[in-house]
Amino acid sequence: MKVLVLGAGQLAKMLYLAAAPLGVEVFAVDVTDNSVLNPVSRQVHEFDLAFAIEEAKAITVEFEHIPEPLLELVEASGKLMPNMLSIMAGADRVREKYLLAQNGIANCQHLIIDNVDQLEGITDILGDKIIFKSSRDGYDGYGQWRMRSASDLGSLHDTFDKLDLRKVPLIAEKMSLFDREISVVGARDAKGNICCFQIAENLHYEGQLHVSIAPATKLTKTIIFQANDIFKRIANALEYVGVLAIELFQVGDELLVNEIAPRVHNSGHWTQDGVGTCQFEQHIRAVLGFGLGSTKTPYVNAMVNVIGCTSFSRDLIALDGCHLHWYGKTLREKRKMGHINVVADNYAQLGDKLIALLEHLPEESFPLLAGEAKRLQAFSQT
Amino acid sequence: MKVLVLGAGQLAKMLYLAAAPLGVEVFAVDVTDNSVLNPVSRQVHEFDLAFAIEEAKAITVEFEHIPEPLLELVEASGKLMPNMLSIMAGADRVREKYLLAQNGIANCQHLIIDNVDQLEGITDILGDKIIFKSSRDGYDGYGQWRMRSASDLGSLHDTFDKLDLRKVPLIAEKMSLFDREISVVGARDAKGNICCFQIAENLHYEGQLHVSIAPATKLTKTIIFQANDIFKRIANALEYVGVLAIELFQVGDELLVNEIAPRVHNSGHWTQDGVGTCQFEQHIRAVLGFGLGSTKTPYVNAMVNVIGCTSFSRDLIALDGCHLHWYGKTLREKRKMGHINVVADNYAQLGDKLIALLEHLPEESFPLLAGEAKRLQAFSQT
Repeated sequence: MKVLVLGAGQLAKMLYLAAAPLGVEVFAVDVTDNSVLNPVSRQVHEFDLAFAIEEAKAITVEFEHIPEPLLELVEASGKLMPNMLSIMAGADRVREKYLLAQNGIANCQHLIIDNVDQLEGITDILGDKIIFKSSRDGYDGYGQWRMRSASDLGSLHDTFDKLDLRKVPLIAEKMSLFDREISVVGARDAKGNICCFQIAENLHYEGQLHVSIAPATKLTKTIIFQANDIFKRIANALEYVGVLAIELFQVGDELLVNEIAPRVHNSGHWTQDGVGTCQFEQHIRAVLGFGLGSTKTPYVNAMVNVIGCTSFSRDLIALDGCHLHWYGKTLREKRKMGHINVVADNYAQLGDKLIALLEHLPEESFPLLAGEAKRLQAFSQT
Repeated sequence: MKVLVLGAGQLAKMLYLAAAPLGVEVFAVDVTDNSVLNPVSRQVHEFDLAFAIEEAKAITVEFEHIPEPLLELVEASGKLMPNMLSIMAGADRVREKYLLAQNGIANCQHLIIDNVDQLEGITDILGDKIIFKSSRDGYDGYGQWRMRSASDLGSLHDTFDKLDLRKVPLIAEKMSLFDREISVVGARDAKGNICCFQIAENLHYEGQLHVSIAPATKLTKTIIFQANDIFKRIANALEYVGVLAIELFQVGDELLVNEIAPRVHNSGHWTQDGVGTCQFEQHIRAVLGFGLGSTKTPYVNAMVNVIGCTSFSRDLIALDGCHLHWYGKTLREKRKMGHINVVADNYAQLGDKLIALLEHLPEESFPLLAGEAKRLQAFSQT
C-alpha cells in the first residue's frame, strides 16, 4: 500500500519511517520539480508523478504551501487527505480567520486589510501595537511587519502601498500579551473519530520553535477542555482527515487560536518517543482508515530543535532518555537540522536531563534551553 | 554515516528504520548475489559491495549463516561487529558448545558426534530421548533428528552414515524436560558496557517462535541474576560488540543455554514498542560507539509472530496498544510475514488484549495465542 506525500523534507521522511512497519510505502514529491523520491534515502523513483498518484491509496501533504496547479491535480484524484478546504485554511490566513469566525472560535482581535486606506483609524480599533501578516506565504515582498507605536504607521503605509493587497490581503492583529503558547496536535479519521495528544507548551526564539514540553506544565481542566474542544470543532468543521495541529495563545484561563497547521507538526515531534502511536504513524493510520492508535503518555517529554547547528557529539544520545532525530540536511543558518526528544518521569527530572544534555550542545544555538531546564528543575520530584 | 548489514531480510529492514533517525543509513547485502540494496524499499544501489565496505563505518550481520568467503572479505576490512569469533559461535554448534564449556556455562548434556561409531553406547550417557542437531545449518541432508526411544538408533545410524560427520559433526543432546524457554537479549559496546533488556518468555510451535512475553512472568531474582550473568560472561568472553541474544531453558531454578544468536533476535522484537531504545537502535548504537540507550520498560509486552498468513484485517492495529510490524514479503507456508506487538499495564490486561486481538486473526495460524491469553488473564490486575 502506498501513500503519496506532497513535499519531501523531514516530515515526509518521518512519515516514511512511521509508515514502513505498517507495510505502507511513502512516496514523496519534490514540489519544485514534481519528481517522486524516497524521502529517507533520497533515491529518485523511475516512475513519474502521474503514476504515483495512480498507485497511491491516499495523498497527503507535509506542508500547506503547495503550488496550486499541483494541489488541483491531486485534488482531482479524489485521494487528497486532509481535503483542499483544510489545506487552504492553513495556507491562507484570511480563510483561517473566516473559519474561526464561522465557528465562533476565539482568536486574536484582527482586521483584514485589502486596501491601504484601511490603515486609517486602525489604532482606534486594535491599539498601537499591531502585527501585520501576509495572508499567504511565498509571495515576493510579503512577510510580517510589527508596528510598535502609532508613529510607524506612515512607513508601513508606504510599504503596503507597493503590494497588491487585493490579491494577497494582510491580517492586522492586535499584539496580545499572552502567558504562553501551547499547541494541541491530534488526529481525526474519516469516521469522525478524534484522538488528541497531550497538549504541548512551545518556546519560540526569533520566530522559530526551539523547545516543546509535553504535557505542558500547569494545565488546568479548563484549558485542557478548551483546547480539545477547539480541536474538535475545527476538525469537524473541516471534515478533516489526518493529523492537525492548532497553535494557541493562553491568556489567563482563555485560549486564542494563533495558527492552524493542516499536517504533522514540529510541536508534535515529542510523540515519537513519548507515546505508543506517534503523530506520524497516527497520520498514516488516519488517511488509510486503519483506526487511530493509543496516545497514552507515560512520561513527561521535551523536544529540543537543533537549529543551524551540527557541532555536537552524538554521545548525547547515550544520556538516559535522549533520542536523536536527525534529518540529514545540508547545514544552513536557522535551518532545522534535527531534534532531540527527552523523556523523564517528572518535570524536575526532565529539567536535570536537559541540563545534562546542554553539556553536549553549543549553548549559543540553544538560547532557551538552560532557562527552561531551570524552570522545570524547580518542580518537585512527583 | 553508513552501516553495512550482511543479509537483507526483515532484520536489516528494521535496523534501517531504527538507524535513520540517528542520521545513519543502512546498506544491506543480499548474500545470494552480493548486491547492495535499501532493505526497506528494496531499491538496488548503483555501487558495488567493495564500495559499500569502503563507505561503511561498521559492518554487521542480520543472520549468522553467511557464506564464508563473504564473511572473510568483510572481516579483512576490520569493521566487522560483532567479530568473526562471535558470529561463528552462533553459526557452528560445536564452537558454541566449546565456548560454553570454556566459560563453565550450563547447557544441555550433550556429545559431539563426528564419527557414526560414537552412537554405540550413547543411550548409557544421554538416555534414550536424544535430539541430534547438525552443527552447521545450510548443509544438504543435515538438520535435526529426534530419537524417541533406543529402537530408533538403527535407522539413525543408517542416516548419519551417509553424512560427512568429520566435516560437519552432530551435537547429540539429551532431551531435557524444561519448564519453559526464556531469552535474554542485550547489548555490549566496545568499551565493555553491557545493557540487557527485560527477559522474555518464548512460546514455540513446530520449531518456530510464535509468542514472546516480556518481562517473562514469575521471574525470580535467582533467574534474573543467572540470565544476566550468563549474558555478561558470554558477551565478555567473545569481546562482543552489538546486540546478542541467548536462548535459555529454565529447569526449576536453573538455566541452561540452548542457543546463542549473534544478532538482533525475534524474541527482542517487543522492544520496538515497549522500551525507549529498541534492540535495533541499540545494535546501531553499539556498533557505532554512540553509547547504549535506556532499556527501561514501563509496560508488559507481547510479541505475536504472523507466520504463513496474510488473511487478516489491518483494523487490528486500532486495538489499544497493538502495533503491527509488517515485513512486506511474499507469502509462503511457515514464513514469518510480520509481527504484532501488544503493550499493556499488567499481565491480566495483556491477556484481555490478546483475546481481543485474536478476534481479528485466523486462529489456525495462531495456535498458541488463546491459551497464552487465558493464562495471562488469570493474573490479578496489579
